[in-house]
Amino acid sequence: MNKYTNLYGYHAVKHALLNKDRIIKEVFITKNAHKKISENYEIDLNKFNTKIVDSKVINRILDGYQVHQGILAISEKKRIIEMNEYDFSNCRRIVFLDNVVDPRNIGAIIRTCSAFNCKTIITTNKFDQLDEGIVAKASSGGLEYTDIIASKNLSNCLNELKKNKFWIVGFDSEAESDIEDSVFNIQDKTVLIFGDEGKGIRKLTKKLCDMTYRINTTGEIQSLNVSVAIGIILDKISLVSG
Amino acid sequence: MNKYTNLYGYHAVKHALLNKDRIIKEVFITKNAHKKISENYEIDLNKFNTKIVDSKVINRILDGYQVHQGILAISEKKRIIEMNEYDFSNCRRIVFLDNVVDPRNIGAIIRTCSAFNCKTIITTNKFDQLDEGIVAKASSGGLEYTDIIASKNLSNCLNELKKNKFWIVGFDSEAESDIEDSVFNIQDKTVLIFGDEGKGIRKLTKKLCDMTYRINTTGEIQSLNVSVAIGIILDKISLVSG
Repeated sequence: MNKYTNLYGYHAVKHALLNKDRIIKEVFITKNAHKKISENYEIDLNKFNTKIVDSKVINRILDGYQVHQGILAISEKKRIIEMNEYDFSNCRRIVFLDNVVDPRNIGAIIRTCSAFNCKTIITTNKFDQLDEGIVAKASSGGLEYTDIIASKNLSNCLNELKKNKFWIVGFDSEAESDIEDSVFNIQDKTVLIFGDEGKGIRKLTKKLCDMTYRINTTGEIQSLNVSVAIGIILDKISLVSG
Repeated sequence: MNKYTNLYGYHAVKHALLNKDRIIKEVFITKNAHKKISENYEIDLNKFNTKIVDSKVINRILDGYQVHQGILAISEKKRIIEMNEYDFSNCRRIVFLDNVVDPRNIGAIIRTCSAFNCKTIITTNKFDQLDEGIVAKASSGGLEYTDIIASKNLSNCLNELKKNKFWIVGFDSEAESDIEDSVFNIQDKTVLIFGDEGKGIRKLTKKLCDMTYRINTTGEIQSLNVSVAIGIILDKISLVSG
């Protein structure tokens, strides 16, 4: 599999350039974007293999489909972490994505998590098969601050987290309890599980949860976009450190 | 200007067919989608000018770019309401969009508002120049339950709302007060103003606000997607009726 990915868009590339763990092979940038990026005193574009080019060159590299705002970095793909490599001792809040597959949705979720300082996301899907450029763009730079962990076996993974003293909390529009009546202490270590829109979290996943809650929507359209739902929950239970 | 729009996607069309005010000219639907829609006992597809077609026919009508899930309705465009036609007496919660221009963002906002029973959206931009199909699809059907009001003059509009006893509350990532410390009573009539991502609400708009608040994000990425921000606020101050 190709070890490189295209990152594009102002925020996505800015945060990738700021990320010391990101291995950047080449940067293609327009004059205007170069000026804008250079205003950020922490980024020295001379340190990268940077080429100032016309916007059309970037269009061509991207096949013309993506909005790139005059900046593209060719970068090594993000390293996905295995469950057994991760140190959960300093982690109090995890967002667990159960079968969420759309790269834009995943990016939007990462952006929301980054805003609320939740730095650990576990996914049951193959993150490395997603178009990382789309995820990074939708995350608005958040991908650079987020650890993505691959869960290969759902029940092993959740049991491991339970052993690490996490509450396993599922969110489901059909749950009996409203999150407003939640009983867990927001200081506790908590894994928040969200499923794909439409289908929600899977039956087996639901069985493995310590509790499930719904968000109390009162209107005609009951279903929230998954990143909106995550924003609402993280806002309610946000911590100063993740 | 063309008075018709293409509506496509399962939820967008389903709710359009359920909306008695929606004037539908033609429905193009695949066998599978016909079966799925017909399971909704409130919809009688025989009442519409319905043609069962191959998915490719819908692709062709839509130029092949949109995900339509086998269903397309050609419909009259939504009627946009003028400020002076609207009866604000039964309305307690309004979302006001200051210069939000992206149709997908606007659709996502409408979806979130519909979930929290906020049925009135005022926009400073020309809604009728947007691609209504994109808005409707992103709203997941919510557009059918939402009144869209055009504000032609910002200060006249906000003054009119003040006369109608609404608090004018702006949301801005640089505001001094955190929404957690808000002083308005959630039962009060309130206009919630959100600006476009990146730029936020405009200076003049900010001046006309009774108060401005920020959402307390603590992470590396400070900016929330506007529909996520609206979800967080409406969840905090949601009412059973809108």
